Amino acid sequence: MSRAERLAGAAGERELDQLLVGDLVRPGDSDRRGMANLRYLTRFTGTSGLCLVGETVGSGDEPGVFFTDFRYTERAQREVGAEFERATAESQLLPALAERLAGRVGYDDANTSVRNLRKLEEVAPDGVELVPAAGLVEELRRAKDFDELASIAEAQRLTDEVYEWMTGQGLVGRKERDIALAAEQRMRELGAEGPSFPAIVAGGENGALPHAEAGEREIGAGELVVIDMGAIVDGYCSDCTRTFATGDIDVEAREVYELVLEAQTAALKAVRAGAGAKALDAVARELIADAGHGDEFGHGLGHGVGIEVHEAPRLGKTSEDELVSGDVVTVEPGIYVRGRFGVRIEDLVSVDDDGCRSLASRPKDLQIVD
Amino acid sequence: MSRAERLAGAAGERELDQLLVGDLVRPGDSDRRGMANLRYLTRFTGTSGLCLVGETVGSGDEPGVFFTDFRYTERAQREVGAEFERATAESQLLPALAERLAGRVGYDDANTSVRNLRKLEEVAPDGVELVPAAGLVEELRRAKDFDELASIAEAQRLTDEVYEWMTGQGLVGRKERDIALAAEQRMRELGAEGPSFPAIVAGGENGALPHAEAGEREIGAGELVVIDMGAIVDGYCSDCTRTFATGDIDVEAREVYELVLEAQTAALKAVRAGAGAKALDAVARELIADAGHGDEFGHGLGHGVGIEVHEAPRLGKTSEDELVSGDVVTVEPGIYVRGRFGVRIEDLVSVDDDGCRSLASRPKDLQIVD
Repeated sequence: MSRAERLAGAAGERELDQLLVGDLVRPGDSDRRGMANLRYLTRFTGTSGLCLVGETVGSGDEPGVFFTDFRYTERAQREVGAEFERATAESQLLPALAERLAGRVGYDDANTSVRNLRKLEEVAPDGVELVPAAGLVEELRRAKDFDELASIAEAQRLTDEVYEWMTGQGLVGRKERDIALAAEQRMRELGAEGPSFPAIVAGGENGALPHAEAGEREIGAGELVVIDMGAIVDGYCSDCTRTFATGDIDVEAREVYELVLEAQTAALKAVRAGAGAKALDAVARELIADAGHGDEFGHGLGHGVGIEVHEAPRLGKTSEDELVSGDVVTVEPGIYVRGRFGVRIEDLVSVDDDGCRSLASRPKDLQIVD
Repeated sequence: MSRAERLAGAAGERELDQLLVGDLVRPGDSDRRGMANLRYLTRFTGTSGLCLVGETVGSGDEPGVFFTDFRYTERAQREVGAEFERATAESQLLPALAERLAGRVGYDDANTSVRNLRKLEEVAPDGVELVPAAGLVEELRRAKDFDELASIAEAQRLTDEVYEWMTGQGLVGRKERDIALAAEQRMRELGAEGPSFPAIVAGGENGALPHAEAGEREIGAGELVVIDMGAIVDGYCSDCTRTFATGDIDVEAREVYELVLEAQTAALKAVRAGAGAKALDAVARELIADAGHGDEFGHGLGHGVGIEVHEAPRLGKTSEDELVSGDVVTVEPGIYVRGRFGVRIEDLVSVDDDGCRSLASRPKDLQIVD
């Protein structure tokens, strides 16, 4: 079954006649993130588009109709498959799409602006009922197919290659920002579309800020350096963190490193389809808390990765998600000792019924890089 | 008057007691674009924040209160000024902010999701009235102050420097994508935060696609190449297009080039505070239409540039905007001859009462680059 057919089925289970997919905050001027659901559904890579899915919504009984504007007509012909009628809106996408609405229509209330819902209500034909239905495509996106897994694995392999190259270049005496830019440039040279997020390079006390930006600070000898980066290949992301030592570090820093590694290893062992995201988070969190660092692990254990670098499921203290076979998630505990240093170790893994397979290949015992 | 005070004044004119500013689609996980209004108002550069503005909304009678989460507490202390009370939300931003709402509260209905408006309504204190009020900050952002103009001018100067460097490197025999990546890398080396959008390099028939992505096509001799790029400096964008010839081109291509240049020159002469955006667009459009290429100028004349590379005002056929002193806008007519070639010439200008000043310095008579 095509993605459009599966989605139409999921919409039908919710007693929806049609489902509207796309960025309804900025439909004609979106970005990579806003277009993620539409890209998954139709393989369209442009930044202007909307889609309607339903049993026989297309004029030739296709299960989908895809709208874009004149700038992307040719690209849509090339990228969007025959399960979609392909239409070009004369001016704005919203009114063009509104003409085709009928019955109970689900819309993504998490990605529809209040203003655009009002516009849609104004132009929709009589009898149309607009029903909030966020999350249906996100749920489908979780179980990756073979091609998706191959793209993510390749994005991770490329990231591993950049890590290897980077450690060969050395860290000490270089500015965080320069190291980060060089890594991103190297990704592009190796064929990535780009980084999946701005690379983080955080040495010494900067490592204690979980979302540090790579700045002007120069990496010194004998400190810990947290490096978090990922690449985009064929539209799919990778995400990987390693923490390096630039020479001898003190006993406490080494103990914290070993503790984070132990927590990560334990969590990885517990990952499998059917495991609760909250319970997985607890595996790492309890080990860290028992060693007295509970307050210094201030984020969740991980998150799904795919077209977006952060997508469903969410692994954390308050998550209700349960892992499914085909999920690709990060496992990334960290300890942040304020004003001194941070440690985070993150692998990207694909989940199956028996456990998980790590897509990352760089070593995790503490590496010394000068 | 501070930006917060001016905004509180503008809200008061609309009989609002408070105005809510920020990305209410993804308040805790936004991006550069979603944070543009908040960055303008508070100078905060992180990606998690919300702000409430009103006469005496802060607990110390400040005209603003700014909320972020624990990841950004230190950055907010450093960046956000004393006209804001600075608060850290214990968990989510929305409920923390909701506690402080009172009276008639304006919210940005163009950047608030239907789902988050519902959440806000659920947690707001009794008696709060939520009123759609999109566009107030965008309107303030139009008239740039001295520091903003200096940042934009520097971003443009840096872009000019990349153009000069790029023409020295040559174009023929190189892939579009490689030229684009090299230009972006050069921007970063020269100190830009990054490109303001992915650079467009479109040779020959690719130049006829107004939103071509730089691809695998190799630049040949004797063709037109459209290059559109910009940089970000101090949080502000530049935007510039030049069309080069890689050797001799045919008579029609040269005539189209001269026509676009004539249209651009005429439009630039008409730019001044008080001019109607629609009328400016018509200056260029009529010249192009009179020469028989009306159908081949398929986009608007230009747009505002600032923290975002596309912001108010909009210069186009259906725009109701009128230019004000301090606007920074692009003037960028183009002609796209399908299947053959494209020409676009774009300058970034600052608007004042007497006319406009171009921030771009690269030559506009047809440059031959091998």
